[in-house]
Amino acid sequence: MALVVQKFGGTSVGSIDRIRNVARRCLAAQREGNDVVVIVSAMSGETNRLLGLAHQVSEVPDAREMDAIAATGEQICAALTAMAIQTEGGKARSLLGHQVRILTDGAFTKARIKTIDGSKIFDTLKKGEIAVVAGFQGVDEHGNITTLGRGGSDTSAVAIAAAIGASACEIFTDVDGVYTTDPNVCPSAKKIARISFEEMLELASLGAKVLQIRSVEIAMKYGVPIHVRTSFSDAPGTWVTGEDKTLEEVVVAGVAYDKNEARVHIVAVDDKPGVVAQLFSAIADKNLSVDMIIQNVTRGDEARTDVTFTVSKTDLQRLKSFIEETAKGLGAREVRYDEDIVKISIVGLGMRSHAGVAAKMFRLLADEQINIQAISTSEIKISCLVAAKYTELAVRALHDGFGLGDRPPVVA
Amino acid sequence: MALVVQKFGGTSVGSIDRIRNVARRCLAAQREGNDVVVIVSAMSGETNRLLGLAHQVSEVPDAREMDAIAATGEQICAALTAMAIQTEGGKARSLLGHQVRILTDGAFTKARIKTIDGSKIFDTLKKGEIAVVAGFQGVDEHGNITTLGRGGSDTSAVAIAAAIGASACEIFTDVDGVYTTDPNVCPSAKKIARISFEEMLELASLGAKVLQIRSVEIAMKYGVPIHVRTSFSDAPGTWVTGEDKTLEEVVVAGVAYDKNEARVHIVAVDDKPGVVAQLFSAIADKNLSVDMIIQNVTRGDEARTDVTFTVSKTDLQRLKSFIEETAKGLGAREVRYDEDIVKISIVGLGMRSHAGVAAKMFRLLADEQINIQAISTSEIKISCLVAAKYTELAVRALHDGFGLGDRPPVVA
Repeated sequence: MALVVQKFGGTSVGSIDRIRNVARRCLAAQREGNDVVVIVSAMSGETNRLLGLAHQVSEVPDAREMDAIAATGEQICAALTAMAIQTEGGKARSLLGHQVRILTDGAFTKARIKTIDGSKIFDTLKKGEIAVVAGFQGVDEHGNITTLGRGGSDTSAVAIAAAIGASACEIFTDVDGVYTTDPNVCPSAKKIARISFEEMLELASLGAKVLQIRSVEIAMKYGVPIHVRTSFSDAPGTWVTGEDKTLEEVVVAGVAYDKNEARVHIVAVDDKPGVVAQLFSAIADKNLSVDMIIQNVTRGDEARTDVTFTVSKTDLQRLKSFIEETAKGLGAREVRYDEDIVKISIVGLGMRSHAGVAAKMFRLLADEQINIQAISTSEIKISCLVAAKYTELAVRALHDGFGLGDRPPVVA
Repeated sequence: MALVVQKFGGTSVGSIDRIRNVARRCLAAQREGNDVVVIVSAMSGETNRLLGLAHQVSEVPDAREMDAIAATGEQICAALTAMAIQTEGGKARSLLGHQVRILTDGAFTKARIKTIDGSKIFDTLKKGEIAVVAGFQGVDEHGNITTLGRGGSDTSAVAIAAAIGASACEIFTDVDGVYTTDPNVCPSAKKIARISFEEMLELASLGAKVLQIRSVEIAMKYGVPIHVRTSFSDAPGTWVTGEDKTLEEVVVAGVAYDKNEARVHIVAVDDKPGVVAQLFSAIADKNLSVDMIIQNVTRGDEARTDVTFTVSKTDLQRLKSFIEETAKGLGAREVRYDEDIVKISIVGLGMRSHAGVAAKMFRLLADEQINIQAISTSEIKISCLVAAKYTELAVRALHDGFGLGDRPPVVA
């Protein structure tokens, strides 16, 4: 008898009929001999409705009160799901964050889980009941209701699976798995049957559409296999697991793109020790995250250096409010911005042992006359910044160039 | 500096604008130097919406899950109210049943409060914050969310007021107080400035429209004065308090009517010891409540007796399912039902010391040619059962006959 965790997202519980489907699926898993723990999100649209209510009262709603409101979406859905299981003849009970005791820090609206007490869940399972846990929510040490941020139900599910030692965490969603790249951009994209935690993390920009990245970090830390699959059929999805040495490693597992970054180019700062540190300390002090960083000698002035970096587009306005003054203080000539860019990445564990992957990536882009503006690499990922207009072209060139797609059928 | 509890019902918090009004009223009370504890119901319509959702899933929803759903209505409203107070420049924090620790028994959907821990509320007040407590909800000893039944927020408010030693509990609602009778039936009905707990309890059928009867029982037990008033103006409402010996007692405080009873007439049961006990034991075994009971010798058969009693109309169907068999077993000739009746009551502490009140009541009804079908009395109440068609006539005759109304203005 296995212990399985099944998580259903907002669209999977988006109507009473869909909640009934979820109930039947959970009961099927129980009938197969499993102990079943279900984690549910709020019904789709509900969280936005609740946030809308709060924003009618206050432009900047108090975070603690916001969480007390937002958590009701999952509370209602968990109770409805438990009822639906009962209506189908099963036994179930809903458990809220404070009832399980999913203890978090006190960072309202973006709390992080500290510990989970599995005893209430085990008590429920021992009675032959399905435990339906409200996702997205926890409780801090003072008993305040907290929430884990958007998509936090994935995090709830994986953390609970880890805490109770579940054999796997199934994440049911409205897509049928993780793809080698975005199928909307590249028609030859294929569903990935199996991918490592590390690759999944690097594929964040693809993965975020189906799986909250924080949940993958927890799964990796505790070795919980995740199965991302659709709730609308029985088709298997994508397994996200630890590295499996017996499998031949693919060189490139997927191609991702991210249009949410903006490029900032600081021209000709003093090339002295500590200057770049001062620059990024100033940015960090404002709680802004920087992604890629490139430093180059300034053209025609060897005593000076150009610094280019990328920040999230949503942070650009806040950055602009102080960066020019900071840059001037460091002797910079000017600051330029470019929002018309995209970051294209290839990800794969096999890169570690295969030389020439980067060279091949650059050549595939060059073959399409795509100019690379910046490059950054990690052990299993290579990212290139290019003009946004090349997004689809670059994704397709890399995807098919690295052999990720099936060859298109030849029409006679 | 006084400690006041203010409770706002569903219509008083029925929109964002009204919640803002509530916030301003609470802040005004705080500025007057009071520590303020606010209890809120769900926004009007919300509880029915939530029950509707549950009933879509199950015709007979599980009571525990029902409570987890229903409690969200007050949870959201409490948080929105706290936010609204903050938006108006004040300090506030919402507290849920499990956060205050309003400990109840485990009778889901109709739980009764066992204890209330005031410490969380006092902690909040000490910080200069207004404590906004979600009404209607509690938590049982296992941490399950419970609700107190329809109108339970009144009960929450009075119980909290008692637990923290508040000087008064103000119940803000959509009517401006308790009236001597239903103004829709009797145009000369007057708002009562002050009424005793005992009278308020007996006036249940009037009072239930403005005040949950259980809350009056708690208020009486702990001596918490209640002020029932409208949230739409600053007009004083009705004070419900302990008996005040210094005030001259009015003989009759109000006239109530109740159309929700049905009369059951069991003809000619054996007139032997224990027979009537058997009859009402059988009814009690089915959890049905009986109100008035009258026993008379059967006309023309002195060895037999007729038993007449009233039950709530909603219970009549369940009663019919077994009462005829029970009655036959006791030798009864037949069972008759009459739903076309009304119970008219006069209530007043002064009755205790004034003789002839009952006689006057019967005469006033007789003067209108109204036949009395049954009578029951308590120390401070006299009830008569009459045909339903006489409702308005009987109420007006008693109301004005006992001098409760102003005389209608004489038009020259």
